[in-house]
This record gives sequence, C-alpha cells and structure tokens, in this order.
Amino acid sequence: MVDKKKLEQKLAELMDIVPECEGLIAADSSGKVLIGQTLTEMDHGKIAKACAAIIKDSNTLGKDIDKGGLKTTTIELEKGFAVLVGSDRTVLIGLAGSDGRSSLALLKRNLMSISNL
Amino acid sequence: MVDKKKLEQKLAELMDIVPECEGLIAADSSGKVLIGQTLTEMDHGKIAKACAAIIKDSNTLGKDIDKGGLKTTTIELEKGFAVLVGSDRTVLIGLAGSDGRSSLALLKRNLMSISNL
Repeated sequence: MVDKKKLEQKLAELMDIVPECEGLIAADSSGKVLIGQTLTEMDHGKIAKACAAIIKDSNTLGKDIDKGGLKTTTIELEKGFAVLVGSDRTVLIGLAGSDGRSSLALLKRNLMSISNL
Repeated sequence: MVDKKKLEQKLAELMDIVPECEGLIAADSSGKVLIGQTLTEMDHGKIAKACAAIIKDSNTLGKDIDKGGLKTTTIELEKGFAVLVGSDRTVLIGLAGSDGRSSLALLKRNLMSISNL
C-alpha cells in the first residue's frame, strides 16, 4: 500500500529541489492518479494513463532485449521533457520545460528514490 | 515511402560511429520491422511492436502536456538503454549496454538525422 501522505510530502520537497520541474504526478500502476500538481492546468488523468502505458511497454521491452527491469524513461519533446519512473505499485511522472535539460538527472534520481519508499 | 536501401546504409554507418551500440532496428509506424540488426539474436518484431506503442503514447503525452511533438524517448534499464525516435513513417530503435551511457547523445542525434531522411 502506498503511503499517500508521505508521497505527497516527498513530491512537494522535490518541486523545491528542482525548480525547473513544472509538474509532478503520482499514479498507481494502472494509471489512476494519486497525487498531481502541475504549474498550469492539465488533465492529470490523461497524462497518467499515457505514462502508465509507456512504463508497461518499457518493462516489456526490457525483457525482450534481456536488459532487465526499467529504471527510467525520459521523453524529450519539442518544448520540454517528461521523466517517468515506475515500480510495481506506482508511476511517478516529472514534467519540465526546455530549460530543464540540465536538471533531468537530478529529477530522475529523486523520482527513483521516492519510487522505492 | 521509406528508401529502405538508404536507411540500411545509414544504420550500418551508425553501428560504426557508435561502437557501444548493440543493435539497430527500423520499423514502420505500426511496428512492422523494415531492417534489424542486433549483436545477439533477438525477436525484432516484438521489440519493434513495444517501441511503436511507446512512441505513439509519447506523442499523445506531448500533446496532453502541451510540449509539442516527440524528439526522442530514452529508456534506461538495469543493464542498458534503448533510444527511440519516431517520425510519421518510421520508428528507429537503438540498443546499448550499460557502457553506452556516454554515447546516448550521439546515438540520439544520429537516429534523429536518419529519421528525417
């Protein structure tokens, strides 16, 4: 069972640690949103659903190419980034603008540590 | 229409440019394999299918978070990496082992340039 209170606190801290981060969403492995905060209004449900699917397929790929389980998936878009981390229980999503490139490693590391709570 | 001959040549060149690259697969946007070469025997069809799905969902995500189209998706696994680049017509997949971390940017750049052929 995910400790939602603890998760919420950790994600709030992460927003402070990585100021370039424009949004953080936590969902269960099926893509149901647990916590979501984004600078601008966004459909967290839609985002979580797409990300849960990507994480599931990334894990499948890891098996197909015999490279083990997923650590992170980083999606580079024309105007920003999405960093996804998935465990058996949760999907964590970090969003950043184009200025967030140099903070991606920090964002990934923190999301992975939160994912292992 | 994809020029398969040209694509094949460019992918072969890329294997030389990035020696850490353990495999390159080109598929159409539905995940049907056009060209595939991997150091070890792998199911290219299965890999291409998972990657085509990831690229489709990554593009959806880009729209959902208003960050534009997909440039690359990088999947970090326990023992390696997969770099995906997708255009309207093709899905390009580069595979690398854990030693490939420092070559990921070069791999991405080359895959993107091939994708725009």
